[in-house]
Amino acid sequence: MKATAELQVIPIGSGVSVRKQILKVMQVLEGYDLLLETHASGTNIEGDMSTILRAVEDVHERLHGDGEVRLVSYLKLESRTDKEPTLAGKKL
Amino acid sequence: MKATAELQVIPIGSGVSVRKQILKVMQVLEGYDLLLETHASGTNIEGDMSTILRAVEDVHERLHGDGEVRLVSYLKLESRTDKEPTLAGKKL
Amino acid sequence: MKATAELQVIPIGSGVSVRKQILKVMQVLEGYDLLLETHASGTNIEGDMSTILRAVEDVHERLHGDGEVRLVSYLKLESRTDKEPTLAGKKL
Amino acid sequence: MKATAELQVIPIGSGVSVRKQILKVMQVLEGYDLLLETHASGTNIEGDMSTILRAVEDVHERLHGDGEVRLVSYLKLESRTDKEPTLAGKKL
Repeated sequence: MKATAELQVIPIGSGVSVRKQILKVMQVLEGYDLLLETHASGTNIEGDMSTILRAVEDVHERLHGDGEVRLVSYLKLESRTDKEPTLAGKKL
Repeated sequence: MKATAELQVIPIGSGVSVRKQILKVMQVLEGYDLLLETHASGTNIEGDMSTILRAVEDVHERLHGDGEVRLVSYLKLESRTDKEPTLAGKKL
Repeated sequence: MKATAELQVIPIGSGVSVRKQILKVMQVLEGYDLLLETHASGTNIEGDMSTILRAVEDVHERLHGDGEVRLVSYLKLESRTDKEPTLAGKKL
Repeated sequence: MKATAELQVIPIGSGVSVRKQILKVMQVLEGYDLLLETHASGTNIEGDMSTILRAVEDVHERLHGDGEVRLVSYLKLESRTDKEPTLAGKKL
């Protein structure tokens, strides 16, 4: 099933600046067959829903593997059956 | 990997009342080995992260299968390595 | 305008445990004429929309005043005109 | 207090396509002294926190005034005291 999504990952307890961790989130996402559009509040994603969800889990595993103690992800996940869900189609 | 989560599913375009669809969301979630605590703004979940994500995908598949045209899920997904993440541990 | 809401406040960079800060969030909210129901992923709120939004801003001001450097609030805010929006009415 | 935010407004029960309502959300936001960056999953906002919150309430009032029966807003609201919070500063 095709889907669009928005992912924002917040590391808790690793300091006020989280830029290094967000760059790692991007690196993990880029390893998947997904269309990515990063903006100031997260990354918009288009692709297969299973792939999106596997990527989110991988983000947690990889960041914990690098020593992050606590992570919260905020995921908006959208699907529709009347037409192909795309990021382009969600723009005004 | 163990996780806690909160899921809220919004059907768009199926009428102002969405109670019937939310009951279906609950039925799907109850088919999985997850601890569930439903409240006024969603359902808190504790369990294996893979299971949680598979359940979310199943919710979309089952509701679309029943005729829902457009769905948005809002998922908060949390994991930590310093101790077992539990819903009980997140209460004040 | 009456509304229901869910508020989750995340302090970034203040350590892995944020219990102390969440207790302070609750104290601030309790100073307002709002119905509050705290659960494992946030606090559900019912009341006047202006009051809810003023309380959210107050939470940021008070926690920053106590030394918190960085805060992110996740607010779901809902209103409807067909009937009085209540937390009780949103339960299954 | 200065803040950055992300706002996504979902009309429930007004049909599967919500483009018309989102355009109206944008029109309301543009009436305020706020920096706006719209993307596929919402609008990023920079400005005074009080102004942001007043604009969100105005969005609900104006859309209900135009006949929308049920609205849910998802607001991420961020503030920090170590430096000026800006959308530009949140980009990688």
